[in-house]
Amino acid sequence: MPKISEKGQRMPASPIRKLTPYADKAKQDGKKVYHLNIGQPDIATPEGMLNAIKNIDFKVWAYTPSEGTLSYRKKLTEYYNKLDYNITPEDIIVTTGGSEAITIAMMACLDSGDEVIIPEPFYANYNGFASQGDVVVKPILSYIDNGFALPPISEFEKLITHKTRAIIICNPNNPTGYLYSKEEMEALKQLVLKHDLYLFSDEAYREFCYDGRSFISPMHMDGLEENVVILDTVSKRYSACGARLGCLITKNKELRATALKFAQARLSAGMVEQIAGEAAVDTPDRYFEAVNKEYTSRRNTLVSALNKMDGVYCPNPGGAFYVVAKLPIDNADKFCQWMLECFSLNNETVMMAPATGFYSTPGAGLNEVRMAYVLNNNELEKAMICLDEALKVYPGRTVSSEQLSVGSL
Amino acid sequence: MPKISEKGQRMPASPIRKLTPYADKAKQDGKKVYHLNIGQPDIATPEGMLNAIKNIDFKVWAYTPSEGTLSYRKKLTEYYNKLDYNITPEDIIVTTGGSEAITIAMMACLDSGDEVIIPEPFYANYNGFASQGDVVVKPILSYIDNGFALPPISEFEKLITHKTRAIIICNPNNPTGYLYSKEEMEALKQLVLKHDLYLFSDEAYREFCYDGRSFISPMHMDGLEENVVILDTVSKRYSACGARLGCLITKNKELRATALKFAQARLSAGMVEQIAGEAAVDTPDRYFEAVNKEYTSRRNTLVSALNKMDGVYCPNPGGAFYVVAKLPIDNADKFCQWMLECFSLNNETVMMAPATGFYSTPGAGLNEVRMAYVLNNNELEKAMICLDEALKVYPGRTVSSEQLSVGSL
Repeated sequence: MPKISEKGQRMPASPIRKLTPYADKAKQDGKKVYHLNIGQPDIATPEGMLNAIKNIDFKVWAYTPSEGTLSYRKKLTEYYNKLDYNITPEDIIVTTGGSEAITIAMMACLDSGDEVIIPEPFYANYNGFASQGDVVVKPILSYIDNGFALPPISEFEKLITHKTRAIIICNPNNPTGYLYSKEEMEALKQLVLKHDLYLFSDEAYREFCYDGRSFISPMHMDGLEENVVILDTVSKRYSACGARLGCLITKNKELRATALKFAQARLSAGMVEQIAGEAAVDTPDRYFEAVNKEYTSRRNTLVSALNKMDGVYCPNPGGAFYVVAKLPIDNADKFCQWMLECFSLNNETVMMAPATGFYSTPGAGLNEVRMAYVLNNNELEKAMICLDEALKVYPGRTVSSEQLSVGSL
Repeated sequence: MPKISEKGQRMPASPIRKLTPYADKAKQDGKKVYHLNIGQPDIATPEGMLNAIKNIDFKVWAYTPSEGTLSYRKKLTEYYNKLDYNITPEDIIVTTGGSEAITIAMMACLDSGDEVIIPEPFYANYNGFASQGDVVVKPILSYIDNGFALPPISEFEKLITHKTRAIIICNPNNPTGYLYSKEEMEALKQLVLKHDLYLFSDEAYREFCYDGRSFISPMHMDGLEENVVILDTVSKRYSACGARLGCLITKNKELRATALKFAQARLSAGMVEQIAGEAAVDTPDRYFEAVNKEYTSRRNTLVSALNKMDGVYCPNPGGAFYVVAKLPIDNADKFCQWMLECFSLNNETVMMAPATGFYSTPGAGLNEVRMAYVLNNNELEKAMICLDEALKVYPGRTVSSEQLSVGSL
C-alpha cells in the first residue's frame, strides 16, 4: 500500500469537528445536543442575498475571471470604502471562502520553513494551513486573565528571526472574541515596519463589535500599504458560511500579482456566490443593527451564566460571537467528549470546542473551552444549566480552594 | 517591502489565462475574438440543475459537513455505480471543483521533494498544484504523431526513483483529447502495483467519448483499491464550470481519512452547489446524447479544417473537447499573442492556448496550440478561416519543404 505523506500525517484534525462522531452518536441515542462548538450562526441570511440566488437568469453556469467578476469587485469596493479602506477593485482577489484567502496569502508570502507569529489561542485552522505549506507557526501566549489582550510587543520581538515573514491577527478574535484597541494596532504597525513583515489581518468578524466599540483595521493606518493583507469572508457577516465566498485585499502590487497566479491555478471562485455576494452588499443597516443587538444580548447571557458557575471564569469579549471560558476541569478534550458520551440533563447535553485545539503550545488551554453563541438566549440558558450540572459531576473536576464544598465529587 | 515567497515566484502563470489582457485589448479595439483558449463550454447547463438553485428554500446558508452532505454523496454514489465503480458514500469527499480534489490528493500523498510522473502535454495547472506543495513533476513526452498515446511503460520505468509517489493521468485527456485504451490502462495498473504508487485518475471529461468508444477507469480494475484516487468535477459533465463542485474518490481508508483532515481545514464545499449537484445526477440521458452528438460534429469540423491547412497537423481525438494541433510557426506563445495584437480578418481573430504551457520539458510544444471546441460549428468554421489566413501572413511562419509555395511570406 502506498504511504500517506508526512504532511498528511502531521496535519491536525479539526478541533471543532473531531468530536462530531460523538455528537452524532449522542443524537442517535435520542439526546438533544446544544451546538456551541462551531461558528455556524442560526441568524437568517439576508433575504436580498437569497433572492439573488432564486432569481439567477443565466443559461451556462460559467467560470468567472480568476480574480472574481469585475462587477462583484466593484460592489465590494463600495462596501470597503464605506469603512474607509480606500481601495480599488484591482486590490481585491475574490476567494473560495476566507479559508482560501488564508492559503493563498500564505503561499504567496511564505516558503517551507518560514515562520509566522500568531498570538494564541488562535483560529485552529491556521495550524492546518501552515502545515499544508510546511510553514512554522510561532505562537505567543495571550492570557485569559486580561481577556486575551495582545501580548506585549517585547514578546513578539523575542520570537523574530531571519525566518519570520508574517504576523497573523484575527480581529475581533476567534476564538477569544477580543477586539484589538487602536494602541495595540499601532504597536503592531511599528513592529511589522521595523522588521519588514507581512501583517495578515483576518477580519471575518469585523461586523461584530459590541458596546459601541470601534473596529480598527490596518487598512486604516498609513504606511502599511506593502505589508498588509486583509483576509475576509461573507460567512459570518451575512450568516452565509455555506457560500464559500471570501476575498484577499492588498495594495502590494507584486503580492497581488503573485496571489493571482495561485488563484488562476484553481480557475475561479463560485459564480452564483459572486452574484449573491453583490446583492449582499445592499443589505440594509437594520439587518446589522438587529444582529448586533441579538449577539450582544446572547453574549451577556452566556458570560453572566458562566461567571456564576463555581470555579468558572469567562472574560466579557468586545467582538465576534465566541467566548473562551476557564473551567474547573482536568482536560478540555476529555471533558467535551465526556459531555457527549456520558452526560445528559433531561436528555440534553452541550457540545463545545476544547480550547487545546486553538493553542499550538503543547499543554496550553487544557482547562479552557470555546463556545460560540450561535443559539438563541433561551437555548443558551438551557445549555448553561446543563453545563453547570455537568461540571458538578464531571469525574475530572479539579477542585480549587474556593470550591471545597464540592469536594465530595 | 517584505519579499514574495520563492514558491510564489516559481508559480507559473496560467497558460490559458495569461493572454487574457491581449484579448481584452483586442475586444476594446472592436475586434471579435473567437475563444478557443479555455474549456468553458457554451452548452447550456441542465435545466434541472439550474431549477434546483432557483428553488432553494433554506433560511440560513450554512456550512455542510467537510466531506460533503450525505444526501449528495448518496446521489453521487448512484451516478458512479451506474458506471460500475462499486463505491459507497464513505468513499467520496466532495470538493470545491476538481482543482481542490487535485490539491487535496497531492497534499495527502506527496511531500516536498516527492515526485509525480505525468505524461505530457498535460493539464497546465498540475504544474501549479505541484509547485504549491514543492512537489517535483517528472514529465514523459507523448507525441502528436501517434495522437498522444500513452508513452511506453519502459519510459515510466526509467523515471521511477525512491522519491516517486504517484502517476497522474487525465482521461480522456486535456489537452490532447486522447482516450486511453484498455491495454494502456492495464499496463498502468501493472506499473503502479509493481512500484506501489498512487494512480491519480482525473476524469473530468469522462462523459465525452466519441465514435462509440468506451471509457475505462481504474475503478473498473481489480486490485487497485489502495492505489487509485479519482479526481472529478461537475464542471464539464454538466457545463457547470462556475459551480466549483468536484469530488475525490478513494477506497483507501487511510488516505480518505487523511484527505478529510485537509477538507476539514477549509470547512466545507458550497452548499447551494451540492443541492444543484444532487439534482444534476437526474439529468436525462437525452441531454448527454445531444451534447455528445454536438461535440462529435464540432470535433469533425475542427480536425477536418485544420488538416486542410498547409503545414498543419491535428490528430482526431477520441474524447474531451480539445485538440492539440501542430502549426507551421516558430513559437506558439508569440503566435497566439500576435493573433490577438496584430492580426484580424474582417475584424475578427482567434484566441488559442499555446501548448508550451502544457509541457514541463523546456522547449517542448513550441509549434503546437491547444484549441477547445466550445463554440458552435458555424463559429468554429469562421475561426478556422481566420486561423488559416493568419498562418499565411504570420511573420514567424516556418516553411517546410512541402510549403515552398508560401515561401514569399
